[in-house]
Amino acid sequence: MKKLLLLALTITFLYSAPKTSVIFMIGDGMGPAYTSTYRYYKDDASTQKIEATVFDKILIGMNSTYSKNSVITDSAAAGTALASGIKTKNGFIGCTESNDTQIQTVLEFAKDHGYMTAMAVTSTLTHATPAAFLSTRGLHRDKESKIAKDFFIKNKNGALKFDFLIGGGEKYFQEGYIDFNATAKKNNIDIYRNAYNLDKINHYPFIAFTAYDYPAFAIDEHLRDQYRVAKMTKKSLELLENKPFFLMIEGSQIDWCGHINDIGCAMTEMEDFVRSV
Amino acid sequence: MKKLLLLALTITFLYSAPKTSVIFMIGDGMGPAYTSTYRYYKDDASTQKIEATVFDKILIGMNSTYSKNSVITDSAAAGTALASGIKTKNGFIGCTESNDTQIQTVLEFAKDHGYMTAMAVTSTLTHATPAAFLSTRGLHRDKESKIAKDFFIKNKNGALKFDFLIGGGEKYFQEGYIDFNATAKKNNIDIYRNAYNLDKINHYPFIAFTAYDYPAFAIDEHLRDQYRVAKMTKKSLELLENKPFFLMIEGSQIDWCGHINDIGCAMTEMEDFVRSV
Repeated sequence: MKKLLLLALTITFLYSAPKTSVIFMIGDGMGPAYTSTYRYYKDDASTQKIEATVFDKILIGMNSTYSKNSVITDSAAAGTALASGIKTKNGFIGCTESNDTQIQTVLEFAKDHGYMTAMAVTSTLTHATPAAFLSTRGLHRDKESKIAKDFFIKNKNGALKFDFLIGGGEKYFQEGYIDFNATAKKNNIDIYRNAYNLDKINHYPFIAFTAYDYPAFAIDEHLRDQYRVAKMTKKSLELLENKPFFLMIEGSQIDWCGHINDIGCAMTEMEDFVRSV
Repeated sequence: MKKLLLLALTITFLYSAPKTSVIFMIGDGMGPAYTSTYRYYKDDASTQKIEATVFDKILIGMNSTYSKNSVITDSAAAGTALASGIKTKNGFIGCTESNDTQIQTVLEFAKDHGYMTAMAVTSTLTHATPAAFLSTRGLHRDKESKIAKDFFIKNKNGALKFDFLIGGGEKYFQEGYIDFNATAKKNNIDIYRNAYNLDKINHYPFIAFTAYDYPAFAIDEHLRDQYRVAKMTKKSLELLENKPFFLMIEGSQIDWCGHINDIGCAMTEMEDFVRSV
């Protein structure tokens, strides 16, 4: 996983509640070349102007993304930096130099302080970026079934760290637990397997799997104009409304399109991501 | 001239005088890929941190640079946009759609309002970017000897538009005028031909030519560690001190290194530019 640059867009809302809720939006790999290309992709050809995109309008700064052992980070080190403010080596999640140092993520911190916590991503839930918010044992990113087991570790108050998760990769949970369905039931976690059809969900905690393994790309025919990220975001905000919350939303596959040098794929993923804003 | 992105760094100083002086610094072609690469180039390898560069520290925003007929601008259209706030077609200087519309540049505006005005660049003085600040007849960038003739057009108060210029390309002035030396003398403009040895200059108006034709690259042996831009900037500020002024400084050759895909050349030009800050 090279040439990866994370652009983190943190949008903060002030609610009437005394606590400030946070929506942490990550476009994985979405560096300046992507946001410039997206501007051309979205250009209204009937006007001479090249219209500003949502990314242009909300830009407030840039960050450097080097990891502990490379000028070019990967999603594991970058996710760890975004989740915990700590630089680690490429490939590793939730650790500092050695791979056994426990650190605290912003999601864990939020839960400890009475926030609702949730993530909605277009990758597997155990993929590097979301993993970095819930797995802090210093695992390698490739160990997705081990990462899945970290998701149910309780916090110091004996509570689950998340209220709900939406994303792909049920497979890694099934592999990680002797009986995942029983474990979920024991934790009162509802499991949904209806892809992006989330309308009927009105109760948490839950995990809504959008795919058994890795989710398909937005450009794939059956997903085109499905508003994947928008649907996940809408449902999340509906459930979290009026409570202080921390919600992480990732357009995970933007970077994957870059790895396969597919600009159409990348633009479609970005469009899907933007529809949630 | 493709793949050109202009990053304009405008640094504004408030002086005790009621007018605000402006130093308009342009790193030609210096987009985000350049400033990231420069960060790695300048990294102190003895520390784990990749230190922030001057560009990181003063970043306050980004701009889109598309021209009137291309998503990828060139220096002529970009220079015109920076100098006058007007988009034109690639290749053209100081015009709007047709190539005969006169527009006003920020340098001309400053002179009309009693400012001292000057430019110091590492290209020829008649190259696209500096040309866009003094030539507003809609010439094509390639007509450098015609552009040179525009430099002596007086403003509405009958005054020269510039107080001094430092840069290359005497050749185009010699070609543009029947007798350039006589024309300069008639306008009381001193001419210097001492490359970057500017110490003795203490009187203006003047043009200091750093090269007869196109100036050499900073990476060329005889110019290494010559602090070209720093020397020009120091002399400029020394002469302008305590007066309201508009000074344009360009690291012109950063982009030229990009055109020849020479990263060492580009980093050396950027280093030369940075030494002036």
